Amino acid sequence: MIQKITIILIASLLSLGSSAQKEDSLVIKMIADNILIHGKAYENLRQICKKIGPRLSGSIQAQKAVAATAQMLRDSGADTVYFQPCMVPHWVRGVKEVGYIKLPNGSKYPLNLCSLGNSEGTGLKGVNAPVIQVSTIEELEKLGKTGIKGKIVFFNFEMNPTYITTFKAYGESGVSRTAGPSMAARYGAIGVLVRSLASNFDDFPHTGVTIYNDSFPTIPAVAISTNNANWLSSQLMKQQKLTAFFRNTSAMLPDEPSFNVIGEIRGSSFPKEIITVGGHLDSWDLAEGAQDDGAGCVQSIEILRVFKATGIRPKRTIRAVMFMNEENGGRGGSKYLELAKLNRENHFFALESDAGGFSPRGFSLDMSEGQANKIKQWKNLFYPYGVYDFSASGSGSDIGPLKETGAALAGLRPDGQRYFDVHHAPTDVFENVSSRELHMGAVNMAALIYLVDKYGLN
Amino acid sequence: MIQKITIILIASLLSLGSSAQKEDSLVIKMIADNILIHGKAYENLRQICKKIGPRLSGSIQAQKAVAATAQMLRDSGADTVYFQPCMVPHWVRGVKEVGYIKLPNGSKYPLNLCSLGNSEGTGLKGVNAPVIQVSTIEELEKLGKTGIKGKIVFFNFEMNPTYITTFKAYGESGVSRTAGPSMAARYGAIGVLVRSLASNFDDFPHTGVTIYNDSFPTIPAVAISTNNANWLSSQLMKQQKLTAFFRNTSAMLPDEPSFNVIGEIRGSSFPKEIITVGGHLDSWDLAEGAQDDGAGCVQSIEILRVFKATGIRPKRTIRAVMFMNEENGGRGGSKYLELAKLNRENHFFALESDAGGFSPRGFSLDMSEGQANKIKQWKNLFYPYGVYDFSASGSGSDIGPLKETGAALAGLRPDGQRYFDVHHAPTDVFENVSSRELHMGAVNMAALIYLVDKYGLN
Repeated sequence: MIQKITIILIASLLSLGSSAQKEDSLVIKMIADNILIHGKAYENLRQICKKIGPRLSGSIQAQKAVAATAQMLRDSGADTVYFQPCMVPHWVRGVKEVGYIKLPNGSKYPLNLCSLGNSEGTGLKGVNAPVIQVSTIEELEKLGKTGIKGKIVFFNFEMNPTYITTFKAYGESGVSRTAGPSMAARYGAIGVLVRSLASNFDDFPHTGVTIYNDSFPTIPAVAISTNNANWLSSQLMKQQKLTAFFRNTSAMLPDEPSFNVIGEIRGSSFPKEIITVGGHLDSWDLAEGAQDDGAGCVQSIEILRVFKATGIRPKRTIRAVMFMNEENGGRGGSKYLELAKLNRENHFFALESDAGGFSPRGFSLDMSEGQANKIKQWKNLFYPYGVYDFSASGSGSDIGPLKETGAALAGLRPDGQRYFDVHHAPTDVFENVSSRELHMGAVNMAALIYLVDKYGLN
Repeated sequence: MIQKITIILIASLLSLGSSAQKEDSLVIKMIADNILIHGKAYENLRQICKKIGPRLSGSIQAQKAVAATAQMLRDSGADTVYFQPCMVPHWVRGVKEVGYIKLPNGSKYPLNLCSLGNSEGTGLKGVNAPVIQVSTIEELEKLGKTGIKGKIVFFNFEMNPTYITTFKAYGESGVSRTAGPSMAARYGAIGVLVRSLASNFDDFPHTGVTIYNDSFPTIPAVAISTNNANWLSSQLMKQQKLTAFFRNTSAMLPDEPSFNVIGEIRGSSFPKEIITVGGHLDSWDLAEGAQDDGAGCVQSIEILRVFKATGIRPKRTIRAVMFMNEENGGRGGSKYLELAKLNRENHFFALESDAGGFSPRGFSLDMSEGQANKIKQWKNLFYPYGVYDFSASGSGSDIGPLKETGAALAGLRPDGQRYFDVHHAPTDVFENVSSRELHMGAVNMAALIYLVDKYGLN
């Protein structure tokens, strides 16, 4: 109650020049205090990770997560909660993968491995072939058919540790996982081992999507741990001829029905202008998907909760969207755009959080220069909450399609140093998320949405 | 070798205006690349945490840590490695503490508790008395002798979650642990329960030093977990009369000999001007002291390593110092000052890392305004490495005494959101440190020392 009185008092201040900044800083402080004391994002994340767990598209757990987050949105005080049906791929991992390297002395060195998402299976017999390492695309092409046909290609693309922005290293090496299998198949490879896209050295393989090129055979592909990759690479330096074996029984089943889950606060002045804030609800099947991207979901729900709890009445409609199927198809994001066009929705602004629930450092902006400059004028308002960097471009893969509608897009940019230690791995669990870091992300997201709603972007 | 040639080439560039900035940015990039690829800080920390473990002043493990870090300093390429003997307090925890709240129905609710550092023991009989909660110093004083005599005082000072700088909340509530026991003893209390100074809610008690005021009886004092504190507080709201029991057999033994461990690179032009970079080697006995402050030690060692490895030859003498006994006496820091004065050393600059090995965000500065402004002119050089904030004051408790010599002081300021989840608790373990975050701290520390050495501060 006191909070509602505060907001009325604040709102009655003159909103001119520095007094407007002062007013805004008070509202943002109110948002921050509320989230840091009463925030539900961390407990919601615990529920998603610990009561539901991994929630790959098409799985029962993904269904449960749809129902659970709908309830969280209702509990947040959303005016409306509804679903957008969409069909999603239903890939299954099958039984636990096995694999090893056969050493010249006849012994078998077991590998920590897992199928890449969407990978074809080997069948029960597995694949068995000489292994050849490539560290660059050029190396692969130089080897060509002569060097590759009938072999298992080992893509050893290390994430460049000297990039301070870990996402840059991920983007650069990521081609080995997303396109590598088809590139190897083109030259007649019969299987692929991919070095996990990870920034640390441990025994966990990191899965993630591979995308087959229809022009080439779909060969089975697995990730191996970074420790395994380092070991294998050193073995191949010593002795050129090693054979690898692996078996995975993963398979793509027919599409399944699923949903985007949406909660809305209806705008008080311009209800048809839509501000979207979202994350993706699906995760890989080996992880709890805590940082990727349970965090973004619960932060988005938190925006609605804190607006309602503090009496902020947005002029525009605020939608928190739990996108389905970001990981291996992006169907939720596509569906969201499709319905936006069908219903001739006016998408004003969209913000995605899909880079982990770490301490926020900035926002990436994908909008006109004028719009970006307007946001940068608010820098001082974010600085006390740890956000100072508005220099990156891009937004998020679920809201990316909305660009077509003319919406201004943005992405939360948290500290990224730890992200690829756990990304797509069994270590992406609730215990590796900090309550305060997660909530600080929500604070800054709420502040940005508050400001964009209040002042517009033109 | 290539790196050495690079530095010579770089050094031969004209060092004027923007070309100097360009040169500096290249050197800092060389430092960063080297640490992010070849850094030893993380593996050194693993050794300190996993091979040695907790290393409270006066313990065998603290002795082992002295020897181990001396070897690390030698391995880093230090020109000289030596010890500064100092006597340290030797407090021991005794057998595992026990304690409970006796409920009106006669049942006992066990508490997760541990002695505060330096606390007196209860003896084997323990203490048993009605418990009274105080949430502010004013409450304590208002209760006075009438309300407190013969009781166990429960200091329930929650860390204020709305402070974005968690150290501010720690500073504010910390008085309950450091001064609370003596303040309660003044009014006749016979024991103290202190709410753990922690920013999260779990079952681990956080220890930390208490400082007795000689004017009052030294009564035993223990920390209870935040979950216990919340529970106890809610129970006391429902029923005023509860009794508490606890037993701790901690005791202060005679002082023990110990050491600061120092590694030096001798300055090439001004060897008598000393730049100190340090952390503290001792930790609490319940934790591995990974973030507090193994991190600061291995980062300091890393500075010497990277200078040697990349061929940077500082003009001034760079000293990496592992200070002993920061946690419960500060004797290492005092000894360092004492010897600095005795030997008439010229202390030019000192930097401490004792806020955890998290992603760095800034440096706090304790120096003249002119000196601080000089450092702030280098802001752009740090920005690509995540450091942007030079607004805080203070440095670190080990180098603080050096202020007396006229040295300019600074402290590394990493992201602080997770620090008090683990600080002084059994959860402060190696696994909760990120390799990249730790190394990014070392990168920025090395950059600051490189610049201060090169340009001076006047």
